[in-house]
Amino acid sequence: MRESKIGLPKGIRPVRQQVKYGMDQSSTTQGPTGIVMMNLGGPKTLDDVRPFLLKLFEDREIIQLPAQRFLGPYIAKRRTKSVRQKYDEIGGGSPILAWTEEQGRGMCERLDKMSPETAPHKFYVAFRYVHPFSEDALRAMKADGIKRAVAFTQYPQFSCSTTGSSLNELWRAAKNVGLQNDFEWSVIDRWPTHPRFVEAMAETVKQGLEQFSEAERDDVLILFSAHSLPLDVINRGDAYPAEIGASTHEVMKRLDYSHEYVVSYQSDVGPVPWLGPSTEKVIESLGEKKRRNVLVVGIAFTSDHIETLHELDIEYGEVAHKAGITNFKRAPALNGLPVFQDALAEVVHEHLQAGEACSKQYGLRCPGCVNPQCRNILNPVEPYKRTNVSMSKDTKLYKAAS
Amino acid sequence: MRESKIGLPKGIRPVRQQVKYGMDQSSTTQGPTGIVMMNLGGPKTLDDVRPFLLKLFEDREIIQLPAQRFLGPYIAKRRTKSVRQKYDEIGGGSPILAWTEEQGRGMCERLDKMSPETAPHKFYVAFRYVHPFSEDALRAMKADGIKRAVAFTQYPQFSCSTTGSSLNELWRAAKNVGLQNDFEWSVIDRWPTHPRFVEAMAETVKQGLEQFSEAERDDVLILFSAHSLPLDVINRGDAYPAEIGASTHEVMKRLDYSHEYVVSYQSDVGPVPWLGPSTEKVIESLGEKKRRNVLVVGIAFTSDHIETLHELDIEYGEVAHKAGITNFKRAPALNGLPVFQDALAEVVHEHLQAGEACSKQYGLRCPGCVNPQCRNILNPVEPYKRTNVSMSKDTKLYKAAS
Repeated sequence: MRESKIGLPKGIRPVRQQVKYGMDQSSTTQGPTGIVMMNLGGPKTLDDVRPFLLKLFEDREIIQLPAQRFLGPYIAKRRTKSVRQKYDEIGGGSPILAWTEEQGRGMCERLDKMSPETAPHKFYVAFRYVHPFSEDALRAMKADGIKRAVAFTQYPQFSCSTTGSSLNELWRAAKNVGLQNDFEWSVIDRWPTHPRFVEAMAETVKQGLEQFSEAERDDVLILFSAHSLPLDVINRGDAYPAEIGASTHEVMKRLDYSHEYVVSYQSDVGPVPWLGPSTEKVIESLGEKKRRNVLVVGIAFTSDHIETLHELDIEYGEVAHKAGITNFKRAPALNGLPVFQDALAEVVHEHLQAGEACSKQYGLRCPGCVNPQCRNILNPVEPYKRTNVSMSKDTKLYKAAS
Repeated sequence: MRESKIGLPKGIRPVRQQVKYGMDQSSTTQGPTGIVMMNLGGPKTLDDVRPFLLKLFEDREIIQLPAQRFLGPYIAKRRTKSVRQKYDEIGGGSPILAWTEEQGRGMCERLDKMSPETAPHKFYVAFRYVHPFSEDALRAMKADGIKRAVAFTQYPQFSCSTTGSSLNELWRAAKNVGLQNDFEWSVIDRWPTHPRFVEAMAETVKQGLEQFSEAERDDVLILFSAHSLPLDVINRGDAYPAEIGASTHEVMKRLDYSHEYVVSYQSDVGPVPWLGPSTEKVIESLGEKKRRNVLVVGIAFTSDHIETLHELDIEYGEVAHKAGITNFKRAPALNGLPVFQDALAEVVHEHLQAGEACSKQYGLRCPGCVNPQCRNILNPVEPYKRTNVSMSKDTKLYKAAS
């Protein structure tokens, strides 16, 4: 494996150069182990909506706008009212923090039993645009005396727009709070076909199918819906669509291909072209083709939030109703499903046992990557260094953020 | 399973209503079994190039042109010279027929041993735009006294543009030659993650990696390249990209994720937008990012033809050279690899044993399907009938072909 040409910052020791975790049979524990659960997050209350949108529209790693420093806040302000209303309609806020904490507790309980040599295990939530942020997680880890840390994405399928961005933010945050030398990091950057995750997803599909009457059940079309990405992200070579394909195929294999299924992409906004087929248009077309029983499954989401509770259930529910789909149901999100907590624990346990810094793929920048910070910022587990993009902080793309 | 509303034509008995094959333990054989190997095909000699292109540009199921009856032949004539030259550069013709025949022989030898109850097994090649056509295969099957027939796509991943079109053509051809009532059909319409296929593909990747020196091998990026599709096909809900994702993931899993990899799409032509990332652009970008060792793998092709021997090896080889990729290699196609013949035989054997007419997915029209013949023409294994598109032959899309 090639070494970084820039070298590692003083004090950073990537795990792959250490003794493998889980291999030490001595009685002393190597713990505590801190597990950072990274996700987008969502506003917990209606008052969190505006700051959440402000942070989202300021992030040049996700959205590039002209004069972003001014246009970002303007758009965030304009959209606040309608987005607040959506959160109001789903109960006044996103349940994603509550679910992540429940999942984290279940994961750590299981890990303490599965892997006493790395116990105790503690989880820390790091959201992208709402508390708790990466900084919050890092400070809490420091206070808890954590040395060994695992950055664990809660997006099963990798995209630079999701996991890539969260990891970049984590490394930036470590530097911002002066904790860049305090943890021995490794990264779980994807787990699209982990068998227990597949089992958990298949379980939600089964629960979804049970919502149909026995007479209708065989007729159900399963619509796997994932968050879409702009085509320019896809055309750079982002791994996401192939990993979505892999996840859906594994789930259907586990269900013995019991039903017809389609993969589609939701939540496209704005004037740029997005990856299709669009979930909304697929629902309309299925109605035109006289399909009457459709089960939608959020294949890229691990808990309920606005994209499931509002977009799928309310907005697309109306689309389905208008299109004549009599029975439009949604499989429950993984949320508090015990087998999903088994999955999270197994993913971490296998990662600790393998003793790897990250997947081979995490070292790979998309062929068409234009983000100068990608794999190029302070990154304690960076296994490669192949970029010819300047590290200068005042490049055009990041001007607003620097 | 719902019955066809139009009913089945007289004399057509789909296998799923019969006694399961392979379940009969009596000493009498149920054979012979005819296996139709369906593929695109390619001109065998330079003189076949023009009629091949004429048929391709006449096919409204693949290409829709205004005034196709006139414009199709015009474009075919204009492109003949340059395409002839490409075939000249790869040895004067496509080897796809020779490879398919070798694969068919190996498959049938294995099947005769694996499944004596359905022996003898005979294969029949059915190409789309060059001899042997579906009509040729059907007449030969009749002459050989075949009753039980398996339509076996040679495209591992399903698309309406490939397997869907070949199956439609097979059913049309059966009617054209008056043999629509002579065979008891079943269909193998996809096998993107069959374990033996995955093993065979992984074997070609290993052989490809051996072309690099030991010092360079760890540095190789594996570029899985599949034939692209226009985005309007993708946006209708075609299964292809998700199945390509599933295949590549399985192959990398079998290789224990030993190398970084990217999935890309080749052969896009004309002014309409195609599914990306484009293999050509990915190669250019990899060069810009100072990658020096790239192994390209044709994940959707089962033998060498113009897309591997000319496009990947010669055209993209030049692109790679210009981009500074010192070592640009291609994994060998499956061609005569024995384990691939094992794969073909196992796919058929498992299909015969399962006694199913086709996969659950074959009954599914794409949500946005606009082809009135899709799942709507004479189709002896059609398990569903859900279309509201008219069966009229003089609909706009098929006017030229009728």
